[in-house]
Amino acid sequence: MDAEIGYSTDKVKQEDPFPQILNPTLLINRERAIRNIRKMAGKAKASGVCFRPHFKTHQSAEVGGWFRDFGVEQITVSSLDMARYFASHGWRDITIAFPLNIREIEKINVLAKEVRLHLLVESRETVRFLKKHAAAELNLWIKIDAGSRRSGIPWDHFVEIAALAAEIQTSPRLNVQGLLTHAGHTYRAASVEKIREIYRETALRMQATREHLALQGFPRLEISVGDTPACSLVEDFKGVDEIRPGNFVYYDVMQLELGSCREEEIAAAVACPVVAKHPGRGEIVLYGGAVHLSKDFILTKEGTKLFGRAALPRREGWGKFLENTFVAALSQEHGIVKTGQELLSQIQVGSLLMVVPVHSCLAADLLKQDQVMV
Amino acid sequence: MDAEIGYSTDKVKQEDPFPQILNPTLLINRERAIRNIRKMAGKAKASGVCFRPHFKTHQSAEVGGWFRDFGVEQITVSSLDMARYFASHGWRDITIAFPLNIREIEKINVLAKEVRLHLLVESRETVRFLKKHAAAELNLWIKIDAGSRRSGIPWDHFVEIAALAAEIQTSPRLNVQGLLTHAGHTYRAASVEKIREIYRETALRMQATREHLALQGFPRLEISVGDTPACSLVEDFKGVDEIRPGNFVYYDVMQLELGSCREEEIAAAVACPVVAKHPGRGEIVLYGGAVHLSKDFILTKEGTKLFGRAALPRREGWGKFLENTFVAALSQEHGIVKTGQELLSQIQVGSLLMVVPVHSCLAADLLKQDQVMV
Repeated sequence: MDAEIGYSTDKVKQEDPFPQILNPTLLINRERAIRNIRKMAGKAKASGVCFRPHFKTHQSAEVGGWFRDFGVEQITVSSLDMARYFASHGWRDITIAFPLNIREIEKINVLAKEVRLHLLVESRETVRFLKKHAAAELNLWIKIDAGSRRSGIPWDHFVEIAALAAEIQTSPRLNVQGLLTHAGHTYRAASVEKIREIYRETALRMQATREHLALQGFPRLEISVGDTPACSLVEDFKGVDEIRPGNFVYYDVMQLELGSCREEEIAAAVACPVVAKHPGRGEIVLYGGAVHLSKDFILTKEGTKLFGRAALPRREGWGKFLENTFVAALSQEHGIVKTGQELLSQIQVGSLLMVVPVHSCLAADLLKQDQVMV
Repeated sequence: MDAEIGYSTDKVKQEDPFPQILNPTLLINRERAIRNIRKMAGKAKASGVCFRPHFKTHQSAEVGGWFRDFGVEQITVSSLDMARYFASHGWRDITIAFPLNIREIEKINVLAKEVRLHLLVESRETVRFLKKHAAAELNLWIKIDAGSRRSGIPWDHFVEIAALAAEIQTSPRLNVQGLLTHAGHTYRAASVEKIREIYRETALRMQATREHLALQGFPRLEISVGDTPACSLVEDFKGVDEIRPGNFVYYDVMQLELGSCREEEIAAAVACPVVAKHPGRGEIVLYGGAVHLSKDFILTKEGTKLFGRAALPRREGWGKFLENTFVAALSQEHGIVKTGQELLSQIQVGSLLMVVPVHSCLAADLLKQDQVMV
């Protein structure tokens, strides 16, 4: 009788490589992640640029440690709390790649005495505030909008950028370190060639801004760029000084869609227990919802939402994506997988299904407390 | 000079009712939440049904305590960990309104010895597993799909439902407590009248299922229903035994769109620091992104995504929604607010803008550690 009931049978237990996983859990394939790090670090080295990876993707001291083996000593994060976390794990040179939040000035002052802290500014209001309240040396990067239109001063507003640099310069505690941009519009690109084109355009624009600032008396500003699609698809980073990709350590379905990675480079998946099957409508109900995967989705060619791809568990993590199988709906804790009869007859209530998320940064953020390395 | 720089000026400090808020923080308007609880508890009492509110919305022992003043002793949660949390805060009668995850059986057995635990089943595999592994008395509800097509046995599959009830009955530790449904398709309804219609249809279907089961020898099964849209819009719950709404304690932009609440009933908003302004394109950049608000959105009449509405901070929480102002894009930590020149000239870098989320349950889940009561 037990042969029908999945998880409890010896047969299925033997086939279940993760009996210790009871609820939605982020699986990280260490070998793949390290391979991704090695590749990116190697490309940065070959181009002679600084590799300052963004740690917002993993937010993990353990994963951070893997980067040290490739000589990484400078990192990027997206919040002050994340900077404090990594500082407490020995990182001593940290960029908070987010427009400076002046309400946090007291915590910034404390941290800036412990580590070499880099901050982003884009307005005179913020710089004037810092002139009055900064209690430690701060390395400021002017946030430039090179085309993404999210934040930053447009790259060709040379007068405004030079005025901001001049304002920073008047304070002995504030250094103008360089110009920083995030070309997030690569995520909206229709092809890999378009992504490479955006990268070239971004680099040229940042160089033009730098040249104008050199003429205004700021001769040695660095250029920092970096988004995973461009950093994955471009081979030669000459012309910039620093790259800051983050997502590439895990990659995800979004990056696969963009063409910035191959399926076998994806290093993170969410193990989700199967809690019900509905063969009549080709659906499996997972314990794994918006609070585990996030609500990020891509649209399929057919115009339906896809919140993740699915694979079967394997000792090394998970197998190839199952064909015609994907997470089609999410509520707070439920995930609904659309699939065919083959998987429905094969998988049992109590088994795990591995969901490769659309956006691994958000899934990793949600599952910070529930991670397993394989 | 300081008059320009927002947060640091005495004037603005006086006008900032929340100087202690440094980063994205969930503000809960206690008075409104308690009013929402009072109203729902009153309706349940008038209808003579059990009020078993869903605590997945707030996940807070403090907010949970407010329900006790209205006689609530039985609650609903959506995960075992949430059940354990509330059990540790003195709740002794808990329904986990999620298809039972058999991988968690050992933790279920421990909890079931401490509290009266209600669980959802919808398959013989799960029931057979419980027969073998349940080590305490479990109250089982058969999960019925009354039309939402998310999980559960379709309400008119009477033979299947009766067979499951019979299977449960053979174990001395397992009780068939009743029939439970979540009519989540109210969230896709085009009008309040349609929501009321779905409620009536759901109640009739559940009653039909109960009658068929009575004929099969299960005479006293309870009916449990409950989604916030229907429970907010229906006055008389006669015909069911229990309601389990959750979101109504805070409500949100989604509920407002559906017509299940009024703006002045919304009891939760996320306080977000302004980190940049872009008057040229009518945008404000907030510290407040997908990791604070979730990526849930609604589509405006113009077909653009809306991730939240915005209001100015007030001593009592926040003011009325600002016209032509909404969160139009989210990345991991950034929120982009589209607005007009009026707000742009009024608000300063370092000020707080209050974002009323599209889906308060997800925002509250993300900001469990960052909450302030007003």
